[in-house]
Amino acid sequence: MTAFAMEPIGYVRGGRGVVEDDEWGAVRATIELDPSVVDAEATLGLDSFSHIEVVFVFDRVDPDGVCRGARHPRGRTDWPLVGILAQRAKDRPNRIGLTVCRVVSASGHTIAVEGLDAVDGSPVLDVKPYLGGFAPWGEVTEPPWATELMDGYW
Amino acid sequence: MTAFAMEPIGYVRGGRGVVEDDEWGAVRATIELDPSVVDAEATLGLDSFSHIEVVFVFDRVDPDGVCRGARHPRGRTDWPLVGILAQRAKDRPNRIGLTVCRVVSASGHTIAVEGLDAVDGSPVLDVKPYLGGFAPWGEVTEPPWATELMDGYW
Repeated sequence: MTAFAMEPIGYVRGGRGVVEDDEWGAVRATIELDPSVVDAEATLGLDSFSHIEVVFVFDRVDPDGVCRGARHPRGRTDWPLVGILAQRAKDRPNRIGLTVCRVVSASGHTIAVEGLDAVDGSPVLDVKPYLGGFAPWGEVTEPPWATELMDGYW
Repeated sequence: MTAFAMEPIGYVRGGRGVVEDDEWGAVRATIELDPSVVDAEATLGLDSFSHIEVVFVFDRVDPDGVCRGARHPRGRTDWPLVGILAQRAKDRPNRIGLTVCRVVSASGHTIAVEGLDAVDGSPVLDVKPYLGGFAPWGEVTEPPWATELMDGYW
């Protein structure tokens, strides 16, 4: 088995200081890029996109406490028992978070965003532009619990 | 600076053996999960979703050769010079790939997918269900070169 050493390209600054379940939509924050990892030109043209995908680490989760099997989403036993890979919970192997958010501005080592559900200080591993061509193809379906869970999230 | 050791939860098997730019839409492959990393229950309920997001590593890219500034997408000088974080090129810091693809089936340690643009052997770091609630909010805009690049991709 090969592990990959992932070096943060930057960190989330501002936004929420504590982890909360819901109402992330209006939260504004910045992603401060690390000049020792990426150059100022790394964000050139990023502001020509309305949205980006941010790959970050849920670094406040204890690595030894991640779920490797199944659990009830948010501990709600009225929702089914589902595998950790069938939900987006934080306590997952590799603790990777992934969210599409709006670009407010992007210049040099600073990207201002809205609707990023990562708390202050979260290490960022990657930023990608959101391309319409990367949206899901065909009909998108999901189980009822997933729709219920997202009610109030943004 | 803290690096994170990311352990593959599994590997892409089948599909394409060589990296190609276009026509990924009909490619079928499986994600074979590593039983030493996740349990068979980790995929429980995953087949109730039509799509998943797969986070993987472009492990054929030389880590020393990644772009940390700007480049022309696909080397095309008729497209603008844009930052590596404003494009989805493989040769990026941390070499993380990210794609939404269709779930064909999911059971135990095997997930069969369609439309995953990762070659045979690619290490997989995470699999998340695609929730409609995680689609981008509001109007999605992108520059013309990005739309052109995706023409023929799937």
